[in-house]
Amino acid sequence: MSLAVEHDDLVTFRRDLHRHPEPAWCEFYTTARIVSELETRDVDEIHYGPGILGSERMNVPDDDELAEWFERAKDAGAREDILAELEGGYTGAVAVIRRGDGPVVGLRVDIDALPIQEADAEHAPAEGDFRSGNEGWMHACGHDAHATFGLGAIDEILESDFEGTLKVFFQPGEEQIVGGEPMADSELIDDVEYLIASHVGLDHPTGEVVAGVDGFLAVSHFLAEFSGEPSHAGGHPEEGRNTVQAMAAAIQNLYAIPRHSDGATRVNAGLVGGGTATNIIPEESFIEGEVRGETTELMQYMNDKAENVLRSAARMHDVEVETERLGRAPSATSDQELVDVVADVARDVTGVDSVLERDQLGGSEDATFLMQAVQDNGGYATYVGIGTDHPGGHHTSTFDVDEESLDIGVELLSKAVLAVAEQRP
Amino acid sequence: MSLAVEHDDLVTFRRDLHRHPEPAWCEFYTTARIVSELETRDVDEIHYGPGILGSERMNVPDDDELAEWFERAKDAGAREDILAELEGGYTGAVAVIRRGDGPVVGLRVDIDALPIQEADAEHAPAEGDFRSGNEGWMHACGHDAHATFGLGAIDEILESDFEGTLKVFFQPGEEQIVGGEPMADSELIDDVEYLIASHVGLDHPTGEVVAGVDGFLAVSHFLAEFSGEPSHAGGHPEEGRNTVQAMAAAIQNLYAIPRHSDGATRVNAGLVGGGTATNIIPEESFIEGEVRGETTELMQYMNDKAENVLRSAARMHDVEVETERLGRAPSATSDQELVDVVADVARDVTGVDSVLERDQLGGSEDATFLMQAVQDNGGYATYVGIGTDHPGGHHTSTFDVDEESLDIGVELLSKAVLAVAEQRP
Amino acid sequence: MSLAVEHDDLVTFRRDLHRHPEPAWCEFYTTARIVSELETRDVDEIHYGPGILGSERMNVPDDDELAEWFERAKDAGAREDILAELEGGYTGAVAVIRRGDGPVVGLRVDIDALPIQEADAEHAPAEGDFRSGNEGWMHACGHDAHATFGLGAIDEILESDFEGTLKVFFQPGEEQIVGGEPMADSELIDDVEYLIASHVGLDHPTGEVVAGVDGFLAVSHFLAEFSGEPSHAGGHPEEGRNTVQAMAAAIQNLYAIPRHSDGATRVNAGLVGGGTATNIIPEESFIEGEVRGETTELMQYMNDKAENVLRSAARMHDVEVETERLGRAPSATSDQELVDVVADVARDVTGVDSVLERDQLGGSEDATFLMQAVQDNGGYATYVGIGTDHPGGHHTSTFDVDEESLDIGVELLSKAVLAVAEQRP
Amino acid sequence: MSLAVEHDDLVTFRRDLHRHPEPAWCEFYTTARIVSELETRDVDEIHYGPGILGSERMNVPDDDELAEWFERAKDAGAREDILAELEGGYTGAVAVIRRGDGPVVGLRVDIDALPIQEADAEHAPAEGDFRSGNEGWMHACGHDAHATFGLGAIDEILESDFEGTLKVFFQPGEEQIVGGEPMADSELIDDVEYLIASHVGLDHPTGEVVAGVDGFLAVSHFLAEFSGEPSHAGGHPEEGRNTVQAMAAAIQNLYAIPRHSDGATRVNAGLVGGGTATNIIPEESFIEGEVRGETTELMQYMNDKAENVLRSAARMHDVEVETERLGRAPSATSDQELVDVVADVARDVTGVDSVLERDQLGGSEDATFLMQAVQDNGGYATYVGIGTDHPGGHHTSTFDVDEESLDIGVELLSKAVLAVAEQRP
Repeated sequence: MSLAVEHDDLVTFRRDLHRHPEPAWCEFYTTARIVSELETRDVDEIHYGPGILGSERMNVPDDDELAEWFERAKDAGAREDILAELEGGYTGAVAVIRRGDGPVVGLRVDIDALPIQEADAEHAPAEGDFRSGNEGWMHACGHDAHATFGLGAIDEILESDFEGTLKVFFQPGEEQIVGGEPMADSELIDDVEYLIASHVGLDHPTGEVVAGVDGFLAVSHFLAEFSGEPSHAGGHPEEGRNTVQAMAAAIQNLYAIPRHSDGATRVNAGLVGGGTATNIIPEESFIEGEVRGETTELMQYMNDKAENVLRSAARMHDVEVETERLGRAPSATSDQELVDVVADVARDVTGVDSVLERDQLGGSEDATFLMQAVQDNGGYATYVGIGTDHPGGHHTSTFDVDEESLDIGVELLSKAVLAVAEQRP
Repeated sequence: MSLAVEHDDLVTFRRDLHRHPEPAWCEFYTTARIVSELETRDVDEIHYGPGILGSERMNVPDDDELAEWFERAKDAGAREDILAELEGGYTGAVAVIRRGDGPVVGLRVDIDALPIQEADAEHAPAEGDFRSGNEGWMHACGHDAHATFGLGAIDEILESDFEGTLKVFFQPGEEQIVGGEPMADSELIDDVEYLIASHVGLDHPTGEVVAGVDGFLAVSHFLAEFSGEPSHAGGHPEEGRNTVQAMAAAIQNLYAIPRHSDGATRVNAGLVGGGTATNIIPEESFIEGEVRGETTELMQYMNDKAENVLRSAARMHDVEVETERLGRAPSATSDQELVDVVADVARDVTGVDSVLERDQLGGSEDATFLMQAVQDNGGYATYVGIGTDHPGGHHTSTFDVDEESLDIGVELLSKAVLAVAEQRP
Repeated sequence: MSLAVEHDDLVTFRRDLHRHPEPAWCEFYTTARIVSELETRDVDEIHYGPGILGSERMNVPDDDELAEWFERAKDAGAREDILAELEGGYTGAVAVIRRGDGPVVGLRVDIDALPIQEADAEHAPAEGDFRSGNEGWMHACGHDAHATFGLGAIDEILESDFEGTLKVFFQPGEEQIVGGEPMADSELIDDVEYLIASHVGLDHPTGEVVAGVDGFLAVSHFLAEFSGEPSHAGGHPEEGRNTVQAMAAAIQNLYAIPRHSDGATRVNAGLVGGGTATNIIPEESFIEGEVRGETTELMQYMNDKAENVLRSAARMHDVEVETERLGRAPSATSDQELVDVVADVARDVTGVDSVLERDQLGGSEDATFLMQAVQDNGGYATYVGIGTDHPGGHHTSTFDVDEESLDIGVELLSKAVLAVAEQRP
Repeated sequence: MSLAVEHDDLVTFRRDLHRHPEPAWCEFYTTARIVSELETRDVDEIHYGPGILGSERMNVPDDDELAEWFERAKDAGAREDILAELEGGYTGAVAVIRRGDGPVVGLRVDIDALPIQEADAEHAPAEGDFRSGNEGWMHACGHDAHATFGLGAIDEILESDFEGTLKVFFQPGEEQIVGGEPMADSELIDDVEYLIASHVGLDHPTGEVVAGVDGFLAVSHFLAEFSGEPSHAGGHPEEGRNTVQAMAAAIQNLYAIPRHSDGATRVNAGLVGGGTATNIIPEESFIEGEVRGETTELMQYMNDKAENVLRSAARMHDVEVETERLGRAPSATSDQELVDVVADVARDVTGVDSVLERDQLGGSEDATFLMQAVQDNGGYATYVGIGTDHPGGHHTSTFDVDEESLDIGVELLSKAVLAVAEQRP
């Protein structure tokens, strides 16, 4: 089988997204671009706007930031009629193709970018003239390729004799692990029987495929904001209620949460700050941090302990603390039933020369929310790794995808959809 | 004026007490010895037993320890009829002399000893054969001399034309600041119009007198006991509730209680411990500590903060904590009215060659409870320093008093009582 | 005596400065304005530029910030020939009047402002149309009045029969305690025999004067910058070197530096921060803090302890730390010889109805460097408080000076200079 | 096959050891008893005394404690000629049987007891009159049975047609993980080609055998002793050098050592203490603790971090710290080659009804030193679990072994030795 879609079209689409990297809940240009493409195809339903989310969003940027990205998308030529539906940060889209009586198969791809300044020399996007046009932001984890996988697979399926329903979830906000949860709470996922999520790279070279990735650490991001009372540090230190002391006590004791014998746990106070001036007892401080666990239970163990540490540290220094969950993702496991199918078709995909059954991620991903939703409904899910030669590591300024892997991904995912629909594993 | 009492009698009495140093609430021998002496004199009332205390005692030793000291006193020849009244640790005594219409004047002396091993060479008690007979305990702060001052002053007053009422308070448990509070709560203090407390040494040489000591730091001793749950530190660390982590968090934050602009504060975790073995998550731990302040309010500020730190540290590690007050003393100030009288008579005392009006103690003392009680009733109080050459520092194994200062103390205190009774300052 | 200078001129000058508040080392407009005024008078020497500082400046803003304030001063109409001498942040000025053989008397006033947003309603400057024109900055501690005192006193002296030398030090950078030290190291201070520093307000109302302020806490501001190594907090926490852990350990132990029995001490971690994202082990963090002491020795005790805590906390977490001193000031005491003279003349000043000999500041000031320099050379110094009704507290957005106190300050300082020159106390 | 040894003899020997539980380096009675038994048999070599250890011993009790246990052994009837060789705590023994050209096979059993007070009712040893005769000490982990396994297996092999060399290592000091290391450093281990270590119970019932235990956490026990300087906490807190502050900082940061992505780690401050009295800045304090890791490398990672924390905490509070290693054990893995042999013979052992190939220990053991030594020389090792119904858990006062398992252990181990010698796996 050769692809119905042209390599050049995949490249063109991916590069356009690459030029317009956007953060969580601000993927206005990206969503509008995807939707406008879908409208030119024989797709049965295109969902976007608030309706694709089934629960509250976390960590939505403030109105000013949303407005800024909205305007930027408009200036970049995004269709205003589509943008209008996304206002307030309701980004992402779901495409549905209905063809006969077969099972409901889902693909999940993510579409957001990272706050990284892209390299401007000795870097393919710079040389190929598709470097990020949004200063300080970059598709440094390949989500531009992921969206291309999604669109390309739709094109392949449309040209095929597919029997069943295909749902492609273009998920926003993965980098901040905020998009997966509300999308998994949507009704759109309810009838999905098989879900394939995918990711490029992950230190696998072009031509290598992992049929079932595991080892997702469940994760929860939190923001703790302490508020106390300022006073003059020389004149009346006792009149202050010192949030920096509370913050320091919290940090020390967060890292000291007991290790758990059931498996790996993590904790990090990744971004902290407080106070205003050397001579003022600090009135405000904050910790933006995360906890993780090898299982969702272990993450929850860490989360409960962390909340208690934060509350107790505040009490200890007679200050208040408010904690807010910024984002989260559970753990998940790829089902062997789907892993077998994917591994099987992978061996026939042009350009694939190595197929691994399983590998460990060792990080976190909120595709796990969608995987879990499908599995909870009795369905199967797998997370597929599609190798790509990447010059710099993920989340670095020199990351890039080898565009040969675009064709591999499209062929692999579309073939897997077809095989699943036929075999109902 | 020369003394009515003989120097040798003072020395004999002091040395007998020196041979029998006893801790707080265990001054059985000492009290019995004092009471039996008083019974040979023309004293109007001798109070001892539970009746001399007006409120609950803190930090009473357990029954075994009380019984051990009780037996030791009996073995040392203490009168059993007196001992019977002291059972349960009701030590201390109050002597009352009533002579006509004058004012009620009080003297306060303390009688307990310290857990220090006395030097056994190049030390007057060793050479003079009156070294401590109770291993590990020692009159290392001169309370043997204080009791001698009290008895000697009674003898002088009995020989004088004193008009008024003299009450001499032989207070137990000063070293642990436990005796002052219940004695100050007794009715015996209620009619005292003038109170003179006294102490030997304080780095003043024999012949120097301080008429009014100030600078008492108010103090509170506490015991915090943490209890959690043990577990195997290798196999199931998460099943433990770790009291050593709580204790460590508490210690760090106790010392970090904000300084206060109203004056000096102190905090100390002086004796701590916890756990049982390297491989067990520690189930029990404790902090025995203290807070102090230049004023009683400052001590209370520290105490409130400390309690909050202890409670919050326990919560932070999901363990329980019980705090108990072990002893305390307020701050106090010597009244100028009495300071003037004492300074005045001091200049006429044989052997006195230097009289200071005021000096700072910089430590704590629970005579302050009695001083405060008198002052609260509209009376006056002062704390008098009676110099003595002491080879080693207070609370060290080579401390001793120059016995010449016994005569000075007796003369000074008795003359002061007489002057106060006459002048009603 | 009535003033030679007009009240309206004082007000006009003060309000012009009030409109142009500037931070330490950026007092370009202010200095240029002062120098241009001095040039219209019969002043013997006007010093400005690098020559008025005798040692390195600390905490100089970076070139961009200097350039921004420089341009702003130019735009506001500051004389460019004067500005040229101030380039690089060499602000401040010293005026010298030489009249005959009398002693050398110094006045010290400071000229910088604070990073506070001025109130824009129910506030005299807003209503009188002289509110701060530099957003976010404000003369919230009356240094506009201080500079007016200096210029007004010069005018008075020029009209008087003063015999001696008057040096007026217009000191930059007091709020960050950076200007006093290098100015005190200059040769200009060497021959000063009497120094009078002054401050408005300090919670004293208009008409009240304090002839000798004491109770300066010696202070040192520091910046500690920790640098470690980032790593992915989920994937490889052990590969990071965590500066936030080091920072937290340092904060906890800074506040826990033992109290000192010689007097009051202070410590504050007033502004802290670190890290970049929840999922990255934090590579960088910092503490901007301060230590203080009732004496310079106590401040030094705290400073030595703090440096050791910072270094050890860094080692504990295998990270590096660089500490930098941002500013400092010693303690100082007003000499009774000068206090007497000032108190004496104050009673004759129009509008003064209350003269206090002494009061305690309870804060810090780097005028103490100049006071100490004069005292070290055998001279005398005092720090004078000139009351003013101020609606809001010092360092708040509603602070303001009662302009009646401008006349009082000018008359008091000039009369004091004359009295000192005559009496050579 | 039925056993050559009598069940009653096994029981008698085990109960005799049970009556005489002894701690590490004090197994005088136990060793003498074993050696005197060996001397009655046709054993080729019996090694005991200093010669069986190849390196320094850690955590040897002080002379008084050694002498006390030595005397107790003598009083209990231990042979004095054997005891004489053990003086100074050189306990343990190695028996060697040489029979022809076969391979060198080792058995390792341990012989020490625990500081636990044995139950005195509803407990087989109490009822059977073989309860611990050493108050406060107890064979609460079945090492009495282990020694019986060793002696019984010797008896079986002596009766068999074994061809090869058998070495039985009666190892002292396992509970404190101090005996394994020096025994593994001895030349006696050098020629061992196959090593079988064994343990009763481990939550497996009588009749169940685990052929290869894994999951040993590498461990290191340490003692950190802090020394500073005392001072009066009220009078001169600044003159002290506070070891309790150092200890608390160390504890907080020990528990906060970063988790490692390579596997499980542990840390515990299991026994801590410091100071003398509420009002004294604490001069001395200590932490007795441990670190563990899923691999020896992970344990070493924790150990290096812990040492740095301890050193830095001491520096932070200007005190000294000495750290000492109290004991340690590496991780280890049972070799499949031996696991197969043991599992195979286990199925034929009388009374065995369940054979597990593998199980996880989740704790630590210093048999791993001997296993590793053999493996490093190219040999094979396994750690065998021999189930026993035990009423109370390991390390509790009601632990006991089902004596039926004595026969099972002896048969299993002797058959395994024979099979290994024949098969040379």
